[in-house]
Amino acid sequence: MSEQILMERLEKYINSIKKPDQAVKAKALERLAEQARPAGSLGVLEDAGAKLAAIAAIHDKNMINTLDVKLKNRVVVTCAGDHGVVEEGVSLFPQEVTPQMVVNFVNGGASINVLARYAGASVKVADFGVNFDFDPDMPIFHKKVRKATSNFTKDPAMSRKEAIQSIIGGIEIVEKLVEEASIKGEKIDLLGTGDMGIGNTTPSSAIIAAFSGISVAKLTGRGTGIDDTMLKNKIKVIEKALAIHQPNPEDSIDVLSKVGGFEIGGLAGLVIGAASYGIPVVCDGIISTAGALIAYKLAPCVIDYIFAGHRSVEVGHKFMHEQMGLTPLLDLQFRLGEGTGAAVAFLLMDAATRILAEIKTFEEVAIINAQKQIK
Amino acid sequence: MSEQILMERLEKYINSIKKPDQAVKAKALERLAEQARPAGSLGVLEDAGAKLAAIAAIHDKNMINTLDVKLKNRVVVTCAGDHGVVEEGVSLFPQEVTPQMVVNFVNGGASINVLARYAGASVKVADFGVNFDFDPDMPIFHKKVRKATSNFTKDPAMSRKEAIQSIIGGIEIVEKLVEEASIKGEKIDLLGTGDMGIGNTTPSSAIIAAFSGISVAKLTGRGTGIDDTMLKNKIKVIEKALAIHQPNPEDSIDVLSKVGGFEIGGLAGLVIGAASYGIPVVCDGIISTAGALIAYKLAPCVIDYIFAGHRSVEVGHKFMHEQMGLTPLLDLQFRLGEGTGAAVAFLLMDAATRILAEIKTFEEVAIINAQKQIK
Repeated sequence: MSEQILMERLEKYINSIKKPDQAVKAKALERLAEQARPAGSLGVLEDAGAKLAAIAAIHDKNMINTLDVKLKNRVVVTCAGDHGVVEEGVSLFPQEVTPQMVVNFVNGGASINVLARYAGASVKVADFGVNFDFDPDMPIFHKKVRKATSNFTKDPAMSRKEAIQSIIGGIEIVEKLVEEASIKGEKIDLLGTGDMGIGNTTPSSAIIAAFSGISVAKLTGRGTGIDDTMLKNKIKVIEKALAIHQPNPEDSIDVLSKVGGFEIGGLAGLVIGAASYGIPVVCDGIISTAGALIAYKLAPCVIDYIFAGHRSVEVGHKFMHEQMGLTPLLDLQFRLGEGTGAAVAFLLMDAATRILAEIKTFEEVAIINAQKQIK
Repeated sequence: MSEQILMERLEKYINSIKKPDQAVKAKALERLAEQARPAGSLGVLEDAGAKLAAIAAIHDKNMINTLDVKLKNRVVVTCAGDHGVVEEGVSLFPQEVTPQMVVNFVNGGASINVLARYAGASVKVADFGVNFDFDPDMPIFHKKVRKATSNFTKDPAMSRKEAIQSIIGGIEIVEKLVEEASIKGEKIDLLGTGDMGIGNTTPSSAIIAAFSGISVAKLTGRGTGIDDTMLKNKIKVIEKALAIHQPNPEDSIDVLSKVGGFEIGGLAGLVIGAASYGIPVVCDGIISTAGALIAYKLAPCVIDYIFAGHRSVEVGHKFMHEQMGLTPLLDLQFRLGEGTGAAVAFLLMDAATRILAEIKTFEEVAIINAQKQIK
């Protein structure tokens, strides 16, 4: 398919994104304010509950009456890819770890498997550009664009066409999940995004630098734990890439193609796909959020569907949240990725739905107390 | 009972507090460091898991082999009391709200009921000093010391004897819960502390000021939402109380009696009781944490059992955590109390136990991958 046809397909998805039901949101906020407790006293979980109700109303016309959001079917999609820039010595781990971890995810023994299981979610894995030939029968989403991006200190990470292709790959995953659920008469109620890819904090920091104009030194962290010397080098590598390619912050595809990653494109696609199918999507760490930022800059309307799962130790993360005006739900000093922060945040999303639906208003309490007449 | 006999009883409980199993803690930290992920990448949940395992080892000699902590029986105890200082206009709400909320808790329609239910916990309510005559048959812990403290801008909030009595009341609640569980062949695995009491952020700010010496203006917040004029007055009220009574920061009972509250004494007792019975205890907001701080200053060994559930909007809270060297698990901009932040934090405690027990080490992963041989 030509770049133009791919782009038209992408635009079709973007144009299909509906605004969540603002009347339901207003009703939810009104109910929260009338609950028998000081106004605003349940902080960020109040906004989260109202936002979830507005999204749920897309599928449930009775939501305006019940305000009772059920997040039953939940999936974390962990997107993997490799990065040519690892040649520059930006990561502690060798590239071989990426396919090894993909196998771990499939085998169920990785951190995301444990935390997703606890959060009542299934884990799906997607290969967008791992430098390894997986067996086509392996139970993952096979969305490989190419085996690792180019080293972006020399060439752009990928072509524009490849960038669009990676985004569409992410959308197709959501489409497939929705289709599989609908066969069982169900839907996807909550999506989490996660990543795996040795070296992928480097493109993520480059992306936030390209969009924000903030200095690379301020935005770049230690990834899985590099020392001061490696950190200095990582900063230089990103500065060099930005200087050579001059990614245009007004053109999200340009940023993704010049300094991004295939799994980051896939993560952007998951967000656009989620918004297109009316599914709330919880982002994990700096790589997932880089994907969300690509999606947001391409289609600002996706913001109504995005929840920031947590604030990572990785320093660039908070600037991404600022760009999108999102308040992260958790701050647990995580720096793992895989979707772990999103999975833990699922628990708070549930809490937000229970707060909205179940805490009584002053009026309801008065009625109950009159009825029960506790002696 | 005389003050001296009460104090001897309190000391008996304090002296019974065991050090959690440090060998188990070390083993847990070792396992966490060997898991197939970057070292330290699951942040504060790693420390929480190790701390929980060390406590659980008190009851389970096999913990050193399994490191599998189960937090099955969980209870939030919400302690209520009234405050003479409300005469000074420190709160938005009238004192009548305290007994009304106690009734709401018993009826199950309050915020803490909803969040505890979601977190798989039961809610118990205790009256330590509500200005209301509850029916003795009402299903709450009846631990009333007196109907509201004295207005501490004039007299000390309570006598030393009353202070000790309130703490012992809290310990007795834990004792009763443990006893009831043991009849069913069970134990209490997790305790949360919560509060209700119109005006009770005022004594809580006074307590942290007394212990830290930090200026009252810096430590005092808006409680349920007072305006600038009321906040200025609240600061003056606390400054006046501290100036008149000069609570001795080296004497925790002195601080509690001069500027504390009956439910705050009860909350301190819950912490001492939990430590005495080997139960991890999660503190909620500024009032619960004021209680924990009283307990900690009286018996520093309780710190091994305390978890900070969340960081409240209330400004004094973080200084309490600093005094005890605790990192709060959540920061959701809550400012409600009742135990709500503790209940939500229960979910993270579970996540911490699953991380420790279930995430595979590099060695285990290698074995599994060799066995499964994913094609």
